[in-house]
Amino acid sequence: MSTQDVKTAKVSASARNEAVEPSSPFMEFGPRKPLRLDAGVDLTPFQIAYQTYGSLNEARSNAVLICHALTGDQHVASTSPVTGKPGGWETMVGPGLPIDTDRYFVICSNVLGGCLGTTGPASPNPTTGEAYGLDLPVITVHDMVRAQSMLLDELGIESLFTVIGGSMGGMQVLQWAASFPDRVFSAIPIATGARHSAQNIAFHEVGRQAIMADPDWRGGKYIAEGVSPRKGLSVARMAAHVTYLSEAALHRKFGRSLQDRDALTFGFDADFQIESYLRHQGMTFVDRFDANSYLYMTRAMDYFDLAEDYGGALANAFKGCPTRFCVMSFTSDWLFPTAESREIVHGLNAAAANVSFVEIETDKGHDSFLLDEPEMFRTIDGFLQGAGRLRGLS
Amino acid sequence: MSTQDVKTAKVSASARNEAVEPSSPFMEFGPRKPLRLDAGVDLTPFQIAYQTYGSLNEARSNAVLICHALTGDQHVASTSPVTGKPGGWETMVGPGLPIDTDRYFVICSNVLGGCLGTTGPASPNPTTGEAYGLDLPVITVHDMVRAQSMLLDELGIESLFTVIGGSMGGMQVLQWAASFPDRVFSAIPIATGARHSAQNIAFHEVGRQAIMADPDWRGGKYIAEGVSPRKGLSVARMAAHVTYLSEAALHRKFGRSLQDRDALTFGFDADFQIESYLRHQGMTFVDRFDANSYLYMTRAMDYFDLAEDYGGALANAFKGCPTRFCVMSFTSDWLFPTAESREIVHGLNAAAANVSFVEIETDKGHDSFLLDEPEMFRTIDGFLQGAGRLRGLS
Repeated sequence: MSTQDVKTAKVSASARNEAVEPSSPFMEFGPRKPLRLDAGVDLTPFQIAYQTYGSLNEARSNAVLICHALTGDQHVASTSPVTGKPGGWETMVGPGLPIDTDRYFVICSNVLGGCLGTTGPASPNPTTGEAYGLDLPVITVHDMVRAQSMLLDELGIESLFTVIGGSMGGMQVLQWAASFPDRVFSAIPIATGARHSAQNIAFHEVGRQAIMADPDWRGGKYIAEGVSPRKGLSVARMAAHVTYLSEAALHRKFGRSLQDRDALTFGFDADFQIESYLRHQGMTFVDRFDANSYLYMTRAMDYFDLAEDYGGALANAFKGCPTRFCVMSFTSDWLFPTAESREIVHGLNAAAANVSFVEIETDKGHDSFLLDEPEMFRTIDGFLQGAGRLRGLS
Repeated sequence: MSTQDVKTAKVSASARNEAVEPSSPFMEFGPRKPLRLDAGVDLTPFQIAYQTYGSLNEARSNAVLICHALTGDQHVASTSPVTGKPGGWETMVGPGLPIDTDRYFVICSNVLGGCLGTTGPASPNPTTGEAYGLDLPVITVHDMVRAQSMLLDELGIESLFTVIGGSMGGMQVLQWAASFPDRVFSAIPIATGARHSAQNIAFHEVGRQAIMADPDWRGGKYIAEGVSPRKGLSVARMAAHVTYLSEAALHRKFGRSLQDRDALTFGFDADFQIESYLRHQGMTFVDRFDANSYLYMTRAMDYFDLAEDYGGALANAFKGCPTRFCVMSFTSDWLFPTAESREIVHGLNAAAANVSFVEIETDKGHDSFLLDEPEMFRTIDGFLQGAGRLRGLS
């Protein structure tokens, strides 16, 4: 137990360092470039940490923006400096892969409110020198996208060949096409929705309450007070993780198999493999993620309602949008079921946008977009080849 | 805040009193009548608290046993002594209702491991005088049913006209038919399964970890130490409650409606009605339920695997069983989906048992069995009328 605590403390410190002194390149935005947030205040100064892969071509026409999901980060195709593990989307991004780093200039930035180098609740509040905690204004998906657009301005990228992401990343994709239609040649929103459902808000609220119930959360001031709401964040992660999988996948992977034992122990240890697996998911998550960031990310998703921002009709968000869309869902995703993707497609159709829609047959649930799904790879590869020809990238 | 705490403390005390001095009638089983538990030890002494409604006929042939669900109790058709609220199944049980107290003698006992008067973790451990806490052996569904059978022996009821229950109650119904086929004339398992799925174990594990993460849980000794893991139990309840409803019901009932406000507040208060509703569910639950009982009940459900107890084939559990079954599921129940009921029916069919199966169309999710579902009432009424004629009850 003590050995584990020591290792944990070390890794947590390193995760915290990423918020303050990121190992990724980052862009600082000073007082002359404030970010006007949906909350109605200017965020200034702020910074955005990002990773790039591949090279920008001379025409600056081959940039691909990846928008990461709730607990993802910018290290999509390179080793995480916090965990030392491979990038979060190495099945999708790399030489010869659908998002081919030999062809495209791939950018992924840590989202606003995150904890891997972009300004978030773990970053120092310039007025106090301590971590922001809950003094950071609540961030929206729109804010995340505005921040990304400022990064692209600095990088000299006027127009994106494609913007792609799953789940919360997919929300950013939709927001990009709505807010900056002329900067988005093509868009791939995966396993997402144009608004967050009541059930999804409910699961997020469970996670937030689990974090806030931890006495070591300290009203959000745990960094200043030298503690960490590890147990609360772990429970939040466990609850969320169940929703990322499907009943069929859990049955196939674990069923009622026992963990390193021949019989039930008649106790509250992890008798079943699924219990042991979930506990592990919870414990490893707290080593790489900031609890307050989790609150901010989940809130951003809950607040997302694209139609609401455009007078209640989703089609209005995409009026005159020249972007080519490839919308994708997974049959066993019950967090963002296919019906949510169909609503996006209906909104796009009603705006006469250019859209193709693919529902992929898989039993792996919501997390399928991060997994080895050949049909998804083929679909994205085909879509990008076609879009690339139109863009003159061949 | 302080007013609420005072009220809360009062109600909690009353809930705790029910475990020690129940207001329900109860039967005590002394050292000459131990209960041999699946955990391999004898529980002695122990007691069972119960409620009855209606009158036993002269032939003693009209007894109906109701098996309550995880967070239910014996007060199915009478005011709860803890909350002062109506009984938990007043839509189903009463004069002229499907379980007609003018015709049947209805018995419902608090399950073993519960907290409303039957021996459970909040009951005094006779060897220490303090509450058992985790020193109570882990209880199984089979143990619950064995205890109920001992209560029926004392009440002089040899054979039940019917045994009925939903969810964990339905597991008890199946166990009754398997363990005591000759004592069960008819059986109505609702919204249940013959074993607990990996996904359901996962959600239960989240709830248990939430409770155990609360520093006021104190390794299960919170009663002796004069505290209560209120926050942890509340989070557990919130997580579970989401699974009791359906996405459609949540959308219909709450959608993205705001709670007593015109606009988002850009904070972590309950902006959405669904958040406020969930928090309320969590907070009221802790006033009426014991956290350790929650651990024991969820563990009992996780351990349930009827086929496993009979050599791996569910049909073996029902070999030669003379009971008439009415199996019931709900279309929008994703916790115990219809597929689970079909597996029960297949097992019964393979044993050549007498079984009818009804899937009820509703969008209300797992909790439908406790709600106003006319088709369920009609189905049960019809089934019991028919069984009653065979039993000579008309």
